[in-house]
Amino acid sequence: MKSKKIHLSESEMPTHYYNILADMPNKPMPPLHPVTQQPLGPEDLAPLFPMELIKQEVSTERYIEIPEEVQELYKIYRPTPLIRATNLEKALGTPAKIYYKYEGVSPTGSHKPNTAIPQAYYNKMEGVTHITTETGAGQWGCALSFACQHFGIALEVYMVKLSYEHKPYRKVLMNTFGAKVIASPSNQTDSGKQILAKTPDSTGSLGIAISEAVEVAMKNDHVKYSLGSVLNHVLLHQTIIGQEAIKQLEIAGDFPDMVIAPFGGGSNFAGIAFPFLHLNLTQGKKVECIAVEPTSCPKLTKGQFRYDFGDTVGMVPLIPMYTLGHNFVPPSIHAGGLRYHGAGVIVSQLLKDKLISARAVQQSKCFEAGLLFERTEGILPAPEANHAIATVIEEALKAKETGEAKTILFNLCGHGHFDLSAYEQYLAGNLVDHDLTDAEINQALEELDSTLTVSANASLV
Amino acid sequence: MKSKKIHLSESEMPTHYYNILADMPNKPMPPLHPVTQQPLGPEDLAPLFPMELIKQEVSTERYIEIPEEVQELYKIYRPTPLIRATNLEKALGTPAKIYYKYEGVSPTGSHKPNTAIPQAYYNKMEGVTHITTETGAGQWGCALSFACQHFGIALEVYMVKLSYEHKPYRKVLMNTFGAKVIASPSNQTDSGKQILAKTPDSTGSLGIAISEAVEVAMKNDHVKYSLGSVLNHVLLHQTIIGQEAIKQLEIAGDFPDMVIAPFGGGSNFAGIAFPFLHLNLTQGKKVECIAVEPTSCPKLTKGQFRYDFGDTVGMVPLIPMYTLGHNFVPPSIHAGGLRYHGAGVIVSQLLKDKLISARAVQQSKCFEAGLLFERTEGILPAPEANHAIATVIEEALKAKETGEAKTILFNLCGHGHFDLSAYEQYLAGNLVDHDLTDAEINQALEELDSTLTVSANASLV
Repeated sequence: MKSKKIHLSESEMPTHYYNILADMPNKPMPPLHPVTQQPLGPEDLAPLFPMELIKQEVSTERYIEIPEEVQELYKIYRPTPLIRATNLEKALGTPAKIYYKYEGVSPTGSHKPNTAIPQAYYNKMEGVTHITTETGAGQWGCALSFACQHFGIALEVYMVKLSYEHKPYRKVLMNTFGAKVIASPSNQTDSGKQILAKTPDSTGSLGIAISEAVEVAMKNDHVKYSLGSVLNHVLLHQTIIGQEAIKQLEIAGDFPDMVIAPFGGGSNFAGIAFPFLHLNLTQGKKVECIAVEPTSCPKLTKGQFRYDFGDTVGMVPLIPMYTLGHNFVPPSIHAGGLRYHGAGVIVSQLLKDKLISARAVQQSKCFEAGLLFERTEGILPAPEANHAIATVIEEALKAKETGEAKTILFNLCGHGHFDLSAYEQYLAGNLVDHDLTDAEINQALEELDSTLTVSANASLV
Repeated sequence: MKSKKIHLSESEMPTHYYNILADMPNKPMPPLHPVTQQPLGPEDLAPLFPMELIKQEVSTERYIEIPEEVQELYKIYRPTPLIRATNLEKALGTPAKIYYKYEGVSPTGSHKPNTAIPQAYYNKMEGVTHITTETGAGQWGCALSFACQHFGIALEVYMVKLSYEHKPYRKVLMNTFGAKVIASPSNQTDSGKQILAKTPDSTGSLGIAISEAVEVAMKNDHVKYSLGSVLNHVLLHQTIIGQEAIKQLEIAGDFPDMVIAPFGGGSNFAGIAFPFLHLNLTQGKKVECIAVEPTSCPKLTKGQFRYDFGDTVGMVPLIPMYTLGHNFVPPSIHAGGLRYHGAGVIVSQLLKDKLISARAVQQSKCFEAGLLFERTEGILPAPEANHAIATVIEEALKAKETGEAKTILFNLCGHGHFDLSAYEQYLAGNLVDHDLTDAEINQALEELDSTLTVSANASLV
């Protein structure tokens, strides 16, 4: 009988991050300085990040070595298992083979430590003692709290107010690792005050929380900033997921027709998909890579490709990306990790070049899928992960119709043990969908046009 | 470099449960009927349990085969990893080697599915469609909800009110698996009403919740009952933990001087310790097996060995055990899984025969230990598990003093992601210890003497 789970030994762990910039046919356009609107130099990023991460941000080397100390800490939970969703397959009656890479075995229950560990490490190596960051659902904040605690770095987390209130346990988890957590928008920064003046009852957004965290780092020489998605070096670190999955599928004697992952800023998706895209780009493979976003925040499927700010206040560089506008505050949904107005540079370019595809799924459909997954495979998924699962189920049912024995791989990026208030609402029938209408999207994009006139715009769109 | 984690493949999973009754030098005395006080026959248990579990309860076969369907479902999370606590060792500066068996990787985050799965399976095989149970912290209730959902059995869980209120997420997790959860004591049973009449603001106890769940099963022919610890067959199922650990330590080239586990009713401890006791009893090994209980509920270290009821109302058989009295309601502490007045028959006999030892640890010391563990090893432990960790740390520091390179194994029975309100209180300095005084213990035991006169008593104590 075939194994349900495939484990790699620690000696089979990837020793390098895979950098897709080396293989992209069209390189992304450069980030621009938020004030001068000129292409950014490394010195512009130096107040925010340690030099090693800035180098990784712009590197076009295909493989970047993982420091030994980082590999050592990864071993607390890596390699993560690849699991065949045999019970889900049976329940669906599909000929499709469904595999999931389970990142929920990490200490904080999600894939985020994969980048939190190297980010904290490189900061430590360059003598940094204080870091600020933002967090949406809290997965990123918990992961960085864990990593900073390990390397003896003090951490201040600006947590989107909606999640701060809905997910109090994630806040406490950060506290157990010694981090300080502040609900965003807050009165502790000018950015926060500016938002609160306009919208006193703001539930916050990732864009706002980023502005606050960046501001603190910009204003304090001894403080650096750390981001949990979007940036090239963050996506880079996550590629250990896909690299492991390739080895594990080899052991299973399988290869995927499609790879599916939730999409917030891009690192979840990049982590599992980029190593397969490498095979597409260099070995003629044809793996379909699908990024799945919520219909309440559909930047990939309905946003515009253009230069925009990564944060709400406009403190961070302008980057070429699919966006709904940096002023756009997504509706309150339970997949807090996906409530971000834009997409990372690399992923945006890949989508523009049709090397990957994107879909949007309704919140209620996601919870329905998550519950079916739990009741068959046992694991309660994080609401973010449910976006992938809903799409996997859709594809598995398609395969049932056509009779094709497709092989589907998805990223089960985290467990939902911190998200039970959301499931409670779903079970009680109190969960409301907030699909954006075309009119709302047009309004958001028009507002963006009117507030942001980047000279390079015309040539981009 | 040696591996931090040792994984077994699914083909190396144990195929049999280990039954320590076969090897015990003194067999436990028989359970007595709660009314007639005569030794119990299988027919007395038939209203509560399926016949196959009753057979296991009294079997003296050394090995009992694990059904294939049960093994199949175990594969969702088993074998669980054995992990070397290298970072904790470093932080303590101890020459001791510390290993932990991590059962928190199960779908519900604890070791409880190990017995929930076979219990639900045997019920299913005998046509049972409805089960009742009790739960303390909620770990057992969640595990049985998962297992019953898989086998299509309806489940009703009586949850100790204290936990129902402190751990709302565990209740929701049971709901996601389709279980019905009732705060105990409730108005739905005569047992519950009886308690509420005496103590309207009762926070409940495992003993009370057992009475309620048993009553429902006794009064309804189509309903069976399921228990998450204490009973022989429950301890039996957990022995897969220790069996796996032996194989994993062999791969690591190690063998433990001591095995440490938290103690509530006995299954956690039995699960990891019994396979090592087998080596003590049959191969002359000398592994020290230490059960750790809270100072707020010290039945092993300060209770009396005698016949007592397993539940508060006196509906279940009288069993020979270490007890603080079936009327004893332990103080409100956060390790809800350890708030039980008595100990299982087998474990009690082993303790009486000095084949194992017991210790009691204060709640605050446990949280301190748990936090150190999290900050070194990354995993936030369940408050129950912290009892083992506190003892491990104590032993590791002793080894540091004496310079002995002891090898210590403990059962990290679950993660603490549902227990963050307890950690929040600990971090805020609001956690109060409730050590039982000798006077309180004497009073509890005197009350027991006055309410329960089992003829066999005198010869036992």
